[in-house]
Amino acid sequence: MTVIADDWLSMLVDEVRPHLADGAVSTYLPGLRRACGEELAVAVDHGDGRLFTAGNHHARFTIQSVVKVFTLLLALHHRGEDYVFGRVGRDQGIGSYNSLETFVRESGVPVNPFVNAGALVVVDMLPGDGPDGRVEEVVEFVRAVTGNPGVAVNDGMARSELELADRNRALGYFLRSRGLLTTDVEELLSAYCRMCAIEVDVVDLARAGRVLAQGADVEVMGRRLQASHVRSVRRLMLFAGMYEESGQYACEVGIPAKCGISGAMIGVVPGRSGVGIYGPALDGSANSIGGVRLMRLLAQELEIE
Amino acid sequence: MTVIADDWLSMLVDEVRPHLADGAVSTYLPGLRRACGEELAVAVDHGDGRLFTAGNHHARFTIQSVVKVFTLLLALHHRGEDYVFGRVGRDQGIGSYNSLETFVRESGVPVNPFVNAGALVVVDMLPGDGPDGRVEEVVEFVRAVTGNPGVAVNDGMARSELELADRNRALGYFLRSRGLLTTDVEELLSAYCRMCAIEVDVVDLARAGRVLAQGADVEVMGRRLQASHVRSVRRLMLFAGMYEESGQYACEVGIPAKCGISGAMIGVVPGRSGVGIYGPALDGSANSIGGVRLMRLLAQELEIE
Amino acid sequence: MTVIADDWLSMLVDEVRPHLADGAVSTYLPGLRRACGEELAVAVDHGDGRLFTAGNHHARFTIQSVVKVFTLLLALHHRGEDYVFGRVGRDQGIGSYNSLETFVRESGVPVNPFVNAGALVVVDMLPGDGPDGRVEEVVEFVRAVTGNPGVAVNDGMARSELELADRNRALGYFLRSRGLLTTDVEELLSAYCRMCAIEVDVVDLARAGRVLAQGADVEVMGRRLQASHVRSVRRLMLFAGMYEESGQYACEVGIPAKCGISGAMIGVVPGRSGVGIYGPALDGSANSIGGVRLMRLLAQELEIE
Amino acid sequence: MTVIADDWLSMLVDEVRPHLADGAVSTYLPGLRRACGEELAVAVDHGDGRLFTAGNHHARFTIQSVVKVFTLLLALHHRGEDYVFGRVGRDQGIGSYNSLETFVRESGVPVNPFVNAGALVVVDMLPGDGPDGRVEEVVEFVRAVTGNPGVAVNDGMARSELELADRNRALGYFLRSRGLLTTDVEELLSAYCRMCAIEVDVVDLARAGRVLAQGADVEVMGRRLQASHVRSVRRLMLFAGMYEESGQYACEVGIPAKCGISGAMIGVVPGRSGVGIYGPALDGSANSIGGVRLMRLLAQELEIE
Repeated sequence: MTVIADDWLSMLVDEVRPHLADGAVSTYLPGLRRACGEELAVAVDHGDGRLFTAGNHHARFTIQSVVKVFTLLLALHHRGEDYVFGRVGRDQGIGSYNSLETFVRESGVPVNPFVNAGALVVVDMLPGDGPDGRVEEVVEFVRAVTGNPGVAVNDGMARSELELADRNRALGYFLRSRGLLTTDVEELLSAYCRMCAIEVDVVDLARAGRVLAQGADVEVMGRRLQASHVRSVRRLMLFAGMYEESGQYACEVGIPAKCGISGAMIGVVPGRSGVGIYGPALDGSANSIGGVRLMRLLAQELEIE
Repeated sequence: MTVIADDWLSMLVDEVRPHLADGAVSTYLPGLRRACGEELAVAVDHGDGRLFTAGNHHARFTIQSVVKVFTLLLALHHRGEDYVFGRVGRDQGIGSYNSLETFVRESGVPVNPFVNAGALVVVDMLPGDGPDGRVEEVVEFVRAVTGNPGVAVNDGMARSELELADRNRALGYFLRSRGLLTTDVEELLSAYCRMCAIEVDVVDLARAGRVLAQGADVEVMGRRLQASHVRSVRRLMLFAGMYEESGQYACEVGIPAKCGISGAMIGVVPGRSGVGIYGPALDGSANSIGGVRLMRLLAQELEIE
Repeated sequence: MTVIADDWLSMLVDEVRPHLADGAVSTYLPGLRRACGEELAVAVDHGDGRLFTAGNHHARFTIQSVVKVFTLLLALHHRGEDYVFGRVGRDQGIGSYNSLETFVRESGVPVNPFVNAGALVVVDMLPGDGPDGRVEEVVEFVRAVTGNPGVAVNDGMARSELELADRNRALGYFLRSRGLLTTDVEELLSAYCRMCAIEVDVVDLARAGRVLAQGADVEVMGRRLQASHVRSVRRLMLFAGMYEESGQYACEVGIPAKCGISGAMIGVVPGRSGVGIYGPALDGSANSIGGVRLMRLLAQELEIE
Repeated sequence: MTVIADDWLSMLVDEVRPHLADGAVSTYLPGLRRACGEELAVAVDHGDGRLFTAGNHHARFTIQSVVKVFTLLLALHHRGEDYVFGRVGRDQGIGSYNSLETFVRESGVPVNPFVNAGALVVVDMLPGDGPDGRVEEVVEFVRAVTGNPGVAVNDGMARSELELADRNRALGYFLRSRGLLTTDVEELLSAYCRMCAIEVDVVDLARAGRVLAQGADVEVMGRRLQASHVRSVRRLMLFAGMYEESGQYACEVGIPAKCGISGAMIGVVPGRSGVGIYGPALDGSANSIGGVRLMRLLAQELEIE
């Protein structure tokens, strides 16, 4: 970890910070509402022992939709591409992440694994002894890819998320009415809300991102994740990870990434680095203002294809 | 009740009966699946003591979506037009009655009170001490308008409907996520399923239809139903009562009507008669094949405008 | 024509007039833009020689979308219901009259004959020697139903409408690309624009409405219009004649009507009267503010079912 | 050009060839209908003088939608990203390339430059003295990037395309009605059809692809194409170049590509190679069956990220 690199990251953060005022923290959950819109932290893990940070990298926050990256990877590992992409699409989609338009018309299949409906189907595929087993599986996986055994669910956040999950409940019951879920909807939602409430910091996300950056098979928790599965996840992140702004992001930035409503953001520079960001000030499409701007600056510096 | 009129109705039934083979009974619920597709019964109440029937008019069946006529009328009585039509639209709509397209875009407001989402909002408006009170209110009302104090809920049917109500649950939670419901969704569904499971026969529906045919205020259960409310219900029935076939039905038949998935159908000839039909053989749009054909013949005979 | 009746109509006009300020004249065409938003005229033809008017009943205006009533009737007369309604739907539809959503999904068939796409298909069905023949046929028909041999096309208006018809051109070429038109699109548009530019006054429209109010076959231009065709037109007018407000209008007013962007409006009280209105101040759905309000008052007075 | 590499390409072609029977040549135009579904040719230009081919690389075919890559690049060069992407979106979109759903809802802006509506807007942006000037500009550009001064428009194909362009005409007039085009629609279509009818072979496309693969600014026709513009085009090709299959292609293959209804296909391996394919047997989404399969095999061999 060189001081120079930290300085350079700090410069990027300073450049982005004035734009945070254009956004607002999510009011979706009481726990999110308490976040400070002026926070902006970033970590970059280059995978050779060099890990740089800037901003308050000790801030902990819930992972929210970033967990969809990990649930997808687990589902691919356990079920294979044919099974997984038989049950969720690989389209960018239109409409917001929790809208009724994120189903592929006619079929009822969710457009991709990163919209809420798709994430529910993916969680439905995970192995595990009931919903608790699935949550444990995902938490263990996040601990392993972050290298942080202290990663845990914020139970209060999970509970309040479950209480306010009516839109996701609607998506779940719609999927179930189409025969697209095997799990009880309430159990599935409970598991999903706990997965979303896993607490991490930017260093955790950067380390997990660095694991996802590898081109070869990856050993995680004694499992061998196939390089092709990790690559599929990266590709989907590239063009479907930023809600309604996914297309613009893919064109302008080009670093595969996934954001969450807490302001969490993970980025993956293939073959090189992992990026973790926390920037709770969101734009109108629920993307982290600071996160997207930092990724853009990083992409320019790193000359991302 | 003249023999001649009964004979004439029997002739109409005989004319229609061969077409029943083109349809199939609903498989939506086990209780509906047991119905006999060859059944066809009709009653016409002219309101002056003359009530004619043909077919097996003793057959009892659940009222299903026909109850939406009565819940709408009760809501209008208790809340007034401005309130009711502020919360549900008066458009014909497109898509099937339980689809996700039956919401007015953007607003999330259901297109009309006869699609499932709209009916849930209407039940949400009804007065009554909790869901049980609302069910009791509706059952009492149906008893009053049919003049049949023996009308009651088929509990087994209500239970199985509740178990299979995932699509309606999805609609309910979607409405709730938009702030469009005040009742707990499960309680609302439970009440709604019981209302749909009210058992009637064609004479009951004809008598209720005859009440709805009146042009002046109507006294029901000690309440004075406003003529303008009854007329609004009739008008909506005319152009939005037959699911996806509503437009074609309005043009070709012109008798305000509402059908249910059990094959129940109520018709209202303004100022003149009420019609009750039971024809469980349904067409591809879930309308009673026998019912629609009988209504068409009746409309020709009665020279409906 | 009794003075009393004229007085009563004048009272209605006076009651409505203050609301005109809530609307605005159409800016769609230069010729429409010159209209005076404060104008409001009405004529009611009772068919027994009594014809009442109020407001400036000498004002002449282009018929615009009101002509769709007459083109539909002609198409039904020449082609029959099966043919006509095989090529256009009978649904209320959603979206505005010239939007891309007025096509029945998948099939590309227009939702009804009163949206622009549907009207183009209807004009495509009309007999006549080329577009000029079709225009002549429609003009002759309007002369006959209005009883006014002086009715003619405003050529300047027709020309400016054709120049600004890009949206209709788009609809036409879309229909043609689906194989739903047989006429050359430019010729069809030219004919359609001339039909829309037929000039009438409120007395003309009231007289034509009175013809449409008849329950029996009607003799027009030596042709016998079938009562069932006229009734089909009335029914469609009832629930699909007022653009996006059709459902609300059908419930609240109940007089079959059709409006045009010039502020023209025709109403039909079945079995009784014809109504002609000119009120160029339009609401946000392009309906005549004065027209809709006058119809509502007339419906109350006439106790329309 | 090594024999070994040509052998290897021939092996890939042999592996793919049996699958061609699953598709069919386009029947959209008479000229396309005459193509032979068993044709499959490929060229790969590695940019260091090595250019490998397999199959009948002398076959000439019209470029069709592949030209959208070049019109976009020209528009970016002349107008800049802000202007271009203010007039067309960068979303993957849903629906087929010429459907009415390829407009961003409300705004009417086409979802991306590769759907037909978007391509029309892009051509509208090109400089040039009228439509002929624009066509000349594009032809010159294609000559320059392919290094083939013999590249020319197939006039017969252009004429038949123009005659059958009703769907594109509809898109054009819709755009014009929204104020999104400045050119006369017929002139625009005429220019667009001639651009689509430029004749090339697989070597031309491979050479053009190789130009697009460069990471630095590119000198073409005395113009300096910005590296960032070329990269934007590559990124859009990655996730929006294959019609409805774009998402699946991006995940499974990962080589930025664009296909045309003639079976033409261009691929760009960033920093490395250009690929040209001709495989007129199309799948149900109008993508070249042979082309997509060849790209998949190439991606595996080249270990594309």
